Amino acid sequence: MGTGGIFITLEGADGCGKSTQAELIAGALEAAGKELVRLREPGGTPISEKIRALLLDPANVEMVPEAELMLYEASRAQLTREVIEPALARGAVVLCDRYYDSTYAYQAGGRGIDDVLVRRANALGSCGRMPDRTLVFDLEPSVAFARATAGGADRMEAEGLAFQERVRAAYLRLAEQEPNRVRLVDASGEKDAVLARALDALSDLVDVCA
Amino acid sequence: MGTGGIFITLEGADGCGKSTQAELIAGALEAAGKELVRLREPGGTPISEKIRALLLDPANVEMVPEAELMLYEASRAQLTREVIEPALARGAVVLCDRYYDSTYAYQAGGRGIDDVLVRRANALGSCGRMPDRTLVFDLEPSVAFARATAGGADRMEAEGLAFQERVRAAYLRLAEQEPNRVRLVDASGEKDAVLARALDALSDLVDVCA
Repeated sequence: MGTGGIFITLEGADGCGKSTQAELIAGALEAAGKELVRLREPGGTPISEKIRALLLDPANVEMVPEAELMLYEASRAQLTREVIEPALARGAVVLCDRYYDSTYAYQAGGRGIDDVLVRRANALGSCGRMPDRTLVFDLEPSVAFARATAGGADRMEAEGLAFQERVRAAYLRLAEQEPNRVRLVDASGEKDAVLARALDALSDLVDVCA
Repeated sequence: MGTGGIFITLEGADGCGKSTQAELIAGALEAAGKELVRLREPGGTPISEKIRALLLDPANVEMVPEAELMLYEASRAQLTREVIEPALARGAVVLCDRYYDSTYAYQAGGRGIDDVLVRRANALGSCGRMPDRTLVFDLEPSVAFARATAGGADRMEAEGLAFQERVRAAYLRLAEQEPNRVRLVDASGEKDAVLARALDALSDLVDVCA
């Protein structure tokens, strides 16, 4: 790790319950007396929010995949240098809702952009900073997809079930390739049961209980 | 080359006379009856111009070098896919004022960002598209610098003479490493003499005379 802090990222396909779990995990960490910095990607700094606005503006329909990828990385680089690294240096726990594994899962997995290109882009955008632990909330795609689209589909969700299946497959590959960092958390069942599994997957890094 | 078109980029340190030469070269190409597409970086598409505005906005003083690099690449990727590649595919001559060699010269050379990182970023941002010919207008840095700062210094120029010397050294390295693509053009003396040298450095690619 090399710093006093702990860098935790939360990942998963749309509808996996990640946002709910982010709240619950944050509560548990704060109850344990940790200085907690909560972030979400893209965004988190004034410059990153301006980039987020460019990414999400429907006027930019002609945006090519490579430009989109580089914009995500620009936003990430700013967040990493301006917020994440200083927080880790002072010993905080940084809890980030999506980080570079999302880029891998959605762009390389979902969209089919070349794997090596996405990995290189991620290395640049993260300034070489790796999470200490990444929790992937894993759920059968048909279940996750039904949840995600219950309230109307956003752009990602509009890509359809086959897309979400490719995203999940990419996450499973990451968990296989980097078993120490990337842990699958079974996201089925009651939220408290999921939380217990999530905290268990953090227990070697930080003292925290549900 | 692989396409019917010809992709020419113009490079050089601030004050090398590149803008004047761009006008003159464009005039010569048009006089020779070529379909000419003139571009400048960063910018050239609606999305790229929005990114340019982010890059040049003085409110964004806290922008970190890695974010700046990724924004240049995002702008470039959009320009390459949306404008440069279609123009080359229909057989046009594309004349672009700065392209990825500027990123190399200014970020790796001038600012000292890791050489390999900048090259990888350039490969991503250009979507693998290489210029067929790159003219580097080369001038003794003290002469170029005096010219560039005569009307007041912009941000780049404010970096000082030592910075411009590192930029020039980076351009000289590129010309040595890729002698077929990257040609040094002596930018000293009268503009018509410089133009004759520039056109001579294009003569194997395109029929054009001063």
